[in-house]
Amino acid sequence: MIPQTLKGFRDFLPDTMAPRQQMIRTIEDAFARHGFLPLQTPALEYLETLLGKYGAEGDKLLYRFEDNGGRSVALRYDLTVPLARLVAQHRAEIVLPFRRFHIAPVWRAEKPQRGRFREFLQCDADICGVDSPMADAEVLVTGLATLRALGVSGARLHLNHRDVLFGMLDVLGMTEKTKQIICIRAIDKLDKIGQDGVVAEIVREAEIEASQASEIVRAFAGGGGIEPIAAVAAGKGHAALDTALLRLQAVVDLVAAAGLGEQVVIDRSIARGLDYYTGIIYETRLTDPKVASIGAVMSGGRYDGLIGLFGKEQIAAVGISIGLDRLLAALQELGLLAQGLAQVPIYVMPLDASVAGPALALATELRAAGLRVELDLAGGRIGKQFERAGKRGSKIALVVGSDELAAGVVQVKDLASGEQAKVARAELIDDLRRRLA
Amino acid sequence: MIPQTLKGFRDFLPDTMAPRQQMIRTIEDAFARHGFLPLQTPALEYLETLLGKYGAEGDKLLYRFEDNGGRSVALRYDLTVPLARLVAQHRAEIVLPFRRFHIAPVWRAEKPQRGRFREFLQCDADICGVDSPMADAEVLVTGLATLRALGVSGARLHLNHRDVLFGMLDVLGMTEKTKQIICIRAIDKLDKIGQDGVVAEIVREAEIEASQASEIVRAFAGGGGIEPIAAVAAGKGHAALDTALLRLQAVVDLVAAAGLGEQVVIDRSIARGLDYYTGIIYETRLTDPKVASIGAVMSGGRYDGLIGLFGKEQIAAVGISIGLDRLLAALQELGLLAQGLAQVPIYVMPLDASVAGPALALATELRAAGLRVELDLAGGRIGKQFERAGKRGSKIALVVGSDELAAGVVQVKDLASGEQAKVARAELIDDLRRRLA
Repeated sequence: MIPQTLKGFRDFLPDTMAPRQQMIRTIEDAFARHGFLPLQTPALEYLETLLGKYGAEGDKLLYRFEDNGGRSVALRYDLTVPLARLVAQHRAEIVLPFRRFHIAPVWRAEKPQRGRFREFLQCDADICGVDSPMADAEVLVTGLATLRALGVSGARLHLNHRDVLFGMLDVLGMTEKTKQIICIRAIDKLDKIGQDGVVAEIVREAEIEASQASEIVRAFAGGGGIEPIAAVAAGKGHAALDTALLRLQAVVDLVAAAGLGEQVVIDRSIARGLDYYTGIIYETRLTDPKVASIGAVMSGGRYDGLIGLFGKEQIAAVGISIGLDRLLAALQELGLLAQGLAQVPIYVMPLDASVAGPALALATELRAAGLRVELDLAGGRIGKQFERAGKRGSKIALVVGSDELAAGVVQVKDLASGEQAKVARAELIDDLRRRLA
Repeated sequence: MIPQTLKGFRDFLPDTMAPRQQMIRTIEDAFARHGFLPLQTPALEYLETLLGKYGAEGDKLLYRFEDNGGRSVALRYDLTVPLARLVAQHRAEIVLPFRRFHIAPVWRAEKPQRGRFREFLQCDADICGVDSPMADAEVLVTGLATLRALGVSGARLHLNHRDVLFGMLDVLGMTEKTKQIICIRAIDKLDKIGQDGVVAEIVREAEIEASQASEIVRAFAGGGGIEPIAAVAAGKGHAALDTALLRLQAVVDLVAAAGLGEQVVIDRSIARGLDYYTGIIYETRLTDPKVASIGAVMSGGRYDGLIGLFGKEQIAAVGISIGLDRLLAALQELGLLAQGLAQVPIYVMPLDASVAGPALALATELRAAGLRVELDLAGGRIGKQFERAGKRGSKIALVVGSDELAAGVVQVKDLASGEQAKVARAELIDDLRRRLA
């Protein structure tokens, strides 16, 4: 049998998993500091729970099957729809506003390509039960502070609102819903295919005049800020568009009050693919040119209609989702990834088989004191054991021999400098802590 | 649409998820102290990777399906077979001995019953590349120390060896392999159905005389220790049985050298269901009578043939697996489960909408200092906000008003005692740390 992972799926060996795990803990801690609590839902859901929530394209990408009991089931596609299902299902036990975070893999049967996988980790924080600029600002502040905790300060959040997209298109004379969606999908590609490409796509798909398509694209292209939107909205009396503009400004003001104003920009070209968004939407990009091509590292928005699909009560909700894979790639590129996590600092060596027990006892004592210790298990000549300790990247080797045992000492060797010392057993733990500090 | 989880699957709301998450971290840290490194494999594997590794019963319990590309795939059934596949697949990158831990859900389409779920978490630590009593002892010591780190000291490890089971049956005249397996499966139920039940099952399934079945069952029943095995083996010259006995004794001696001798007992009635075990096997039970019925909380064994199924090289391996669900149930029963993890200690309240920004700024400052802070988002009368803070179980409420802002102070209220104080902004963080200490 040829051992192999499925296409688009990955093994993480310790060298990559150790920094991933540390990042996950940092994200958990940052979410917790912001008042979010952990929560977990199953990997498998009833198919009908997920179907129709992500648009036609998303439906096709679901991993779906019949289980042994003949039920139609699917692997979760994101963490947002399961959250909506959970809030409706456990409504009686949940006190609103409800803040939760959830860090877990999701599965999408996408065509694998560089940086895109069929199994990937999402790190989500959401607030259910409040529709206000303060709730919007709170998740954005949480997201930016989390990125900062990970060592990423050069991140900029591009903020938009669904009603800015639809409202501007209305005002520009493009009022047909299906054609609006074609336009929004095309505008989403401005970065990738440029203005001419977007115009061509709109002309082709929406079957409108090139002049009208050009006018639309010009209105959405050319950088951020609230002014270009206000210019389109001015004097048109489009209530939804005017309300969206006020909301965006209120959210930006609050984020600025939290001292993070530099990291947020209103950007009318942000579209987001998922069908369930109803209010603010955003993507976060890294500003360092070295990693600009990595794309959005954190995104999300408001989805006030989703929980209501699962119950009688409409419950507002807003959230962020951090893409760990892209962030990790960026930190690696920027040299910010923690090093040495996959190395065990202390390596204990029994000089011969007769001292196996005492070596295990020593390792047990050090571990109980909180030190990370590997015990040599392959045995053999001490030279071989030193070789293995070196391959492991350990910092300190402890040699346990019968003479040393009798004398109440342990031989301590610094594997970098080669320096050796005999240390009394009673002083060993303090000595090791000093060496590793 | 009725919001519901699949039968045998669970949502974990913050009240249960917060202590689960803390236990997971404690286990990760304990495994790390013992020189194990984190690793991760995909949830989905090629069906043929998993098929035939868990016995006929296990094959039936796999969640299997065809993916969109027509590949036969299955959700992982445990973490051991994926590890074996990984070691063979990445053999060139892996330095032996290889120690890894992996904490992740597995899926089995079992009939759901009390305490048995279709999705559950396994916490595994394994050593690949060494077949020795020291490696066996090292994983047992790791497991026992991990239980201790979780607050479980009353745990006893029941240790056996596959060759004790097969060897004793040989010596007792039951040499036919298929009948041996029937006997072992039945002996595994001694606790549940008693000696008479086991005899009846063996007579029925293996079609042998009741007198022979009784003799077999007597040899396996009646408590632990090495003596009853030695008595059966004495003078019979059964090489595999004699070797297994020496191995068990060596492992027990090493665990005793590590100071954990009281927690290990040789128990010839331990069988383990999985086909892949080749050496030591064990289960760990809680000694407190209040939780004895919870069953094995940690189990595993040696599986020297498994990695070789995926590659040309035979690589020995031994591991432990902790069942988090059972342990959590036990800790809950024993009152050892950490309390208050699902409460956010500090609750910030803006007195009115005009101070929303300063309230968010205050929350941001406290969070940056490492404090866990919830910001009131629903607003409204301050009495309502205090009510919400109470429901949350917060310890301290901070009221942000325009008068206080102008005076450079914050109103701090202890929600348990009702005591209130005005604290200068510059002293607030130290003050809060003292109150929460």
